[in-house]
Amino acid sequence: MIHMTLEDVRHLVETVLRRHGFSEPHVQAVAATIVAGERDGCTSHGVYRLPGCIATLRAGKVSPDAAPEVFDSAPSVVRVDAHGAFAQCAFHAGMPLLVEKARSQGIAMLAINRCVHFSALWPEVEPLTERGLVALAFTPSHAWVAPAGGIRPLFGTNPIAFGWPRADKPPFIFDFATSAAARGEIDLHRRAGKPIPLGWGIDKDGQPTTDPLTALNGAMLTFGGHKGSALAAMVELIAGPMIGDLTSAESLAFDEGTKSSPYGGELIIAIDPQRILGAEAARHLQRAEAVFEGILGQGARLPSQRRYEARVLSEREGVRIPRALYEEIQALLVA
Amino acid sequence: MIHMTLEDVRHLVETVLRRHGFSEPHVQAVAATIVAGERDGCTSHGVYRLPGCIATLRAGKVSPDAAPEVFDSAPSVVRVDAHGAFAQCAFHAGMPLLVEKARSQGIAMLAINRCVHFSALWPEVEPLTERGLVALAFTPSHAWVAPAGGIRPLFGTNPIAFGWPRADKPPFIFDFATSAAARGEIDLHRRAGKPIPLGWGIDKDGQPTTDPLTALNGAMLTFGGHKGSALAAMVELIAGPMIGDLTSAESLAFDEGTKSSPYGGELIIAIDPQRILGAEAARHLQRAEAVFEGILGQGARLPSQRRYEARVLSEREGVRIPRALYEEIQALLVA
Repeated sequence: MIHMTLEDVRHLVETVLRRHGFSEPHVQAVAATIVAGERDGCTSHGVYRLPGCIATLRAGKVSPDAAPEVFDSAPSVVRVDAHGAFAQCAFHAGMPLLVEKARSQGIAMLAINRCVHFSALWPEVEPLTERGLVALAFTPSHAWVAPAGGIRPLFGTNPIAFGWPRADKPPFIFDFATSAAARGEIDLHRRAGKPIPLGWGIDKDGQPTTDPLTALNGAMLTFGGHKGSALAAMVELIAGPMIGDLTSAESLAFDEGTKSSPYGGELIIAIDPQRILGAEAARHLQRAEAVFEGILGQGARLPSQRRYEARVLSEREGVRIPRALYEEIQALLVA
Repeated sequence: MIHMTLEDVRHLVETVLRRHGFSEPHVQAVAATIVAGERDGCTSHGVYRLPGCIATLRAGKVSPDAAPEVFDSAPSVVRVDAHGAFAQCAFHAGMPLLVEKARSQGIAMLAINRCVHFSALWPEVEPLTERGLVALAFTPSHAWVAPAGGIRPLFGTNPIAFGWPRADKPPFIFDFATSAAARGEIDLHRRAGKPIPLGWGIDKDGQPTTDPLTALNGAMLTFGGHKGSALAAMVELIAGPMIGDLTSAESLAFDEGTKSSPYGGELIIAIDPQRILGAEAARHLQRAEAVFEGILGQGARLPSQRRYEARVLSEREGVRIPRALYEEIQALLVA
């Protein structure tokens, strides 16, 4: 393993992105996401994603420099056209108006269109909670996941993220794929030569498999059976056609076998408890703390707890990157 | 089994509710929900619920006649105070303004406060889809469900419902408890003397059980492990404190051991694809049909398919009610 400080990681990621022609706003925004993933111990959303970003660029499937365009399209709706670039800049461009609308209207949504998405969703939910908002985020991906009762890929890994602001504490945030496992997780098993648990995927004939490559080439499964499958369909619909953007099947068709990152839309909903509750907001948000205490008080964990613990550790001691991955990234500096 | 037409069922339910002093708006609205549940083959949300309604009234835990009060509380927020009555009338009172706001603002929310909730959520989602809206609904219940990694009840069964309008077809709707099974389902197993599957509940010491009564007295489990548990927490927060209403633990405390229906809030979010997409809406909604075809085309089912099939059959041939339940209801006519 290679030990690096977070500053080292940021410098390396930015240098690679710059070297390959990303404009400075995209360099900053994409690097911030990758460093945040590595910092929080989300290995499958950290530096591991960088080679995929460059491969997507080389395949002509992401713009290195398109500037996002913001549309105030209805009193409670912001739309941002990412013009084929990574989603991060588009999110930052649309967020101020989303926050303003949530605060004035009570609830508002941000639809990002024509973006390339490779990151976790919590980096987009967390800044909204820092502004006192409750937030939800959704995005389709590539058609890799079979619906419950089926055997052929149709849904993306279709993550759902949720954030809740807490006074003087890190926000309550969850962010999970509606597939049983993230695709990156299965790929990390493949790289490590480890079998995957039963229930993550099936082969091309619909038979259960523990071989990561067989699952990647067959179909992934949703979490929680028909309920997870229903949620995957919902993400497909509300962050696809509802905002005028691609389904996971359409994204995969657009990909043309280049194995690039998914292309399409992202939906973010923000709600302002202050606007709903007025002077009573602080009292009610304080009551919510009993829910968290009820979880922690019986020895269970909050969804982002491991992430926040990893964050403290990484900020103090840095992170460790597998040597093979480090060398793969070094090679991108000269390629 | 007792055979009844849907008209017979409606007449019976209305007569019982009237006999116990519910005002006519509540008689109509509550009966409509119960008949719809029975009609759609949702046994645990049909006539089976009627004795519970009357028991809740007798325990003094629901108002038989409070008129809901509607507040236009922000440009995209409607609040309805149910004043302690069942949720149905409050929903009908708030729905027109919710629809109007969703159409003008793009996205809007309806918060129902201080309502008693015993029904499924799809009866509230379906009418929104009939008005061309995409809808989400959430409500906490009583603290019956342990968080993942814990053993003590904290969450309610905390259902999530989603509806998507389809041209010339019944809407795509799902509605499920974030618990592994609905509490009514476990109770129906108890009544039938049948064991429950492993994974539905645990005993007071946190050990897995297949005995329905042991699970009802211990803790129910969430579906899908830590992901279902995270969703249960979300429902607890957004349909509880975020709208100034009770958590499932607070609802159970309010219950004072009377085994009444849960008391608290319900959150409904409505989004108008027309407002987001304008002239392009029909084209994008048509693309969504490929998702449904992708599910059906591989032999999998849509979430509400069984319900719609049962509906057609019930409307033609009526329904069958277990004799013991029928007699329990007949007794309510003279008690």
